[in-house]
Amino acid sequence: MKKIGKTFIISGPSGVGKSTVLSALFRGRDDLYFSVSATTRPPRIGECDGVDYHFISPDVFSEWIEKGEFLEYAEYVSNFYGTPKRYVDEAMLAGKDVILDIEIQGAQQVHAQRPDVVRIFIAPPSWEELERRLTARGTDTPEKIQRRLLRAKVEVQTAGNYDYFVVNDTVEKAVEELRAIMLAEHCRPAERMELLNGNNG
Amino acid sequence: MKKIGKTFIISGPSGVGKSTVLSALFRGRDDLYFSVSATTRPPRIGECDGVDYHFISPDVFSEWIEKGEFLEYAEYVSNFYGTPKRYVDEAMLAGKDVILDIEIQGAQQVHAQRPDVVRIFIAPPSWEELERRLTARGTDTPEKIQRRLLRAKVEVQTAGNYDYFVVNDTVEKAVEELRAIMLAEHCRPAERMELLNGNNG
Repeated sequence: MKKIGKTFIISGPSGVGKSTVLSALFRGRDDLYFSVSATTRPPRIGECDGVDYHFISPDVFSEWIEKGEFLEYAEYVSNFYGTPKRYVDEAMLAGKDVILDIEIQGAQQVHAQRPDVVRIFIAPPSWEELERRLTARGTDTPEKIQRRLLRAKVEVQTAGNYDYFVVNDTVEKAVEELRAIMLAEHCRPAERMELLNGNNG
Repeated sequence: MKKIGKTFIISGPSGVGKSTVLSALFRGRDDLYFSVSATTRPPRIGECDGVDYHFISPDVFSEWIEKGEFLEYAEYVSNFYGTPKRYVDEAMLAGKDVILDIEIQGAQQVHAQRPDVVRIFIAPPSWEELERRLTARGTDTPEKIQRRLLRAKVEVQTAGNYDYFVVNDTVEKAVEELRAIMLAEHCRPAERMELLNGNNG
């Protein structure tokens, strides 16, 4: 009985530290696949096709939409971004768990197509701490920080139907929770019963 | 915001090694509470009231049933056994996770009253291995072992609506899965949103 991977969606508000947590999660793990998006945006200097994005033309993007090749897609500042199914499926068949780093709206699209994906929201330990992190980045004006905070509060409410909330208090704790969730999700009865009966003909 | 414990039901077929796994799970953990059943059976030599069982009279048992004091109860060889609510609730309010070691029928009763309990089934890695373990105990005739095996197969099917199957391949792996499940279940959105909003008024 071959192990089949599972797909995990990870979302989180601006400033919560999602990228840092994901980097730590992937460290030394070749049994995980990070889904690379397709985009119609031209590559920036230093970006590699197939690593940062799959860079494709608007015609190809449109063709992929028609063929149902996307798990989700969206327009953002006149460019299109989407998650191609094929790499996700290849990785799962190879026994790898797949991480999709996408926003809540994309997560809804994926979930509509594949209700068995697991949706995880990275939440801040407190609103004060999120404000502190946004301020510490030093990239935004106080007004912009307040808008980001407000948007984060809306996102937390919208993510109420996610399967899990991981609190990014420390990166270590957040990664521990992510790993626990991923292991727990591999203990679902259907998967385990298949293994048990597969072992015994 | 005070942490509230959760209740986890652990079931498993005869011979799967559930007691060994539970002992290992509890080692060094005072944040876990093992639910002690009430029974009308008289104590055996060496058994302590409140430790092995809460030993109560048939009258008291009957009164507790009428008052809705049980999460589940059953008759077994002319004696009654049940899980009193009060100790479970006290432990959860004290922030402890509660483990109920009960059979599938009891689990159904608890789940009907409290749909938020988490049901975990301890499964063998294979039927051959379960047979090997039952044989190694040296307590049963070959016929009895075959009956136990058959009952185990029925139990696995019946437990298909459990939340998780933990495979007792090695005790260490089984405990790792149990801990992962318990941590993951504390990452549910409702609990986490309460913490987040409780932290911020």
